[in-house]
Amino acid sequence: MSDSTRFKPGKSIKLADYDPADTGGVKNKGAAEEEIAAGIEKIADLSFRLYAEARRSVLLILQGMDTSGKDGTIRHVMTGVNPLTCEIVAFKEPTTEELDHDFLWRIHRAVPRRGKVGIFNRSQYEDVLVVRVKHLAPESVWRPRYGMINAFEKLLTQNDTTIVKCFLHISKDEQRKRLQARIDDPHKRWKFNLGDLADRRHWDDYQQAYEDALNECNTAEAPWHIVPSDKKWYRNLVVTRILLRTLTELDPHFPPAKENLEGIVVE
Amino acid sequence: MSDSTRFKPGKSIKLADYDPADTGGVKNKGAAEEEIAAGIEKIADLSFRLYAEARRSVLLILQGMDTSGKDGTIRHVMTGVNPLTCEIVAFKEPTTEELDHDFLWRIHRAVPRRGKVGIFNRSQYEDVLVVRVKHLAPESVWRPRYGMINAFEKLLTQNDTTIVKCFLHISKDEQRKRLQARIDDPHKRWKFNLGDLADRRHWDDYQQAYEDALNECNTAEAPWHIVPSDKKWYRNLVVTRILLRTLTELDPHFPPAKENLEGIVVE
Repeated sequence: MSDSTRFKPGKSIKLADYDPADTGGVKNKGAAEEEIAAGIEKIADLSFRLYAEARRSVLLILQGMDTSGKDGTIRHVMTGVNPLTCEIVAFKEPTTEELDHDFLWRIHRAVPRRGKVGIFNRSQYEDVLVVRVKHLAPESVWRPRYGMINAFEKLLTQNDTTIVKCFLHISKDEQRKRLQARIDDPHKRWKFNLGDLADRRHWDDYQQAYEDALNECNTAEAPWHIVPSDKKWYRNLVVTRILLRTLTELDPHFPPAKENLEGIVVE
Repeated sequence: MSDSTRFKPGKSIKLADYDPADTGGVKNKGAAEEEIAAGIEKIADLSFRLYAEARRSVLLILQGMDTSGKDGTIRHVMTGVNPLTCEIVAFKEPTTEELDHDFLWRIHRAVPRRGKVGIFNRSQYEDVLVVRVKHLAPESVWRPRYGMINAFEKLLTQNDTTIVKCFLHISKDEQRKRLQARIDDPHKRWKFNLGDLADRRHWDDYQQAYEDALNECNTAEAPWHIVPSDKKWYRNLVVTRILLRTLTELDPHFPPAKENLEGIVVE
């Protein structure tokens, strides 16, 4: 099922061809929530086995426009998973120290350790998205980064990290509604920045930057998924399915004893 | 209720006076589990508000003998809390780099950021426990550490971190059963180290080291709780109560908007 959100490496896609309001034939919110709840239980069990095994890791990257639901996805898909078995990292504006290094330095420091499911809320892709749209660096700097990112992700996958990347795809109108809700709802105001409105004015530039990042960095090792995200319940369902399938394919097992324990009686 | 697990700063306690099998008048496992489930929901809500507020943090320190249930407590109390709002750190044998610094260096790097509930599985206390029992450093080195730890914890509390420390108190016989279960149960073998048996031979030395650490570092700012842990369900209940009360007292609120949002209409 989650296959339908992937596209062939080498194929060039247009974001405009993907419907953010798609619900993939799932009947309604109730049906989705039932499947999500069952999925989380399995994810929790598999994550614990992955943690016990302590040999491999999973890195789930979440990218998307403001209000696309990066935090919300983590909340809905990961609440119910033992926090001991996962690592959530949010990348914000780089610090001075981070800017004094190459753009992948802070990313590399934050990759999940063996045994863990790591989730990036924003990631290395900011350096070909906001940096490009806001002209924080010239094209001669950001364009070569696609190749650097592909090489970096390959390194990780060659070292036992399974990478899955999700673009949370929302429509411009849905973003309008969600930004307005952040302004109107006292419980959501803390998430609102006036800068979000400035970013919204660059909507088309961001869509173009995302489209290019998806096309340039959609490798067999680290594929992109385009997740229809206008309906939050469908977005959560798709990410649940993707994570569950990833962990199921890894098929982690409780490892054997480190030493020969035969016949040991504790006194 | 959780007050009964605390003791007055300045008072000197004997661990032998505390019953690891105590269940504090709670009827049975079922009753405990019901209260735990309700508690976790509230903890999840309060943690999210603390996260939104992003001003203060909570640090829960778990210490205890092997098999006392540090991992299990995290699993039972924190599964159901949004992993985005908490940070779990397990301290293992120090690396060469960590040993090249003072003993609090790696601890300080790992304290929770503002807005988060941090949980330490083992902590700075290892440096007055295993270090002392196994003679990894002379008394002239480990004894002054009580004062250093108190000063360090005071620094954190003065900077908006609320510290709660839980000693998971099990009996020697209960440890015997649990170690044997780790040997006998294929799903638990990965947790077993032959070194655990060596540590068990130093049971009395460890109890003495814990007793001293509890007495020396039981400050008003960073109190110790002695958590009866022979019954896992009671242990989980007590830690749930302690964390819930800590968060309730902090009373975190969704913060107001960063900017004046009056009359803004998103276009």
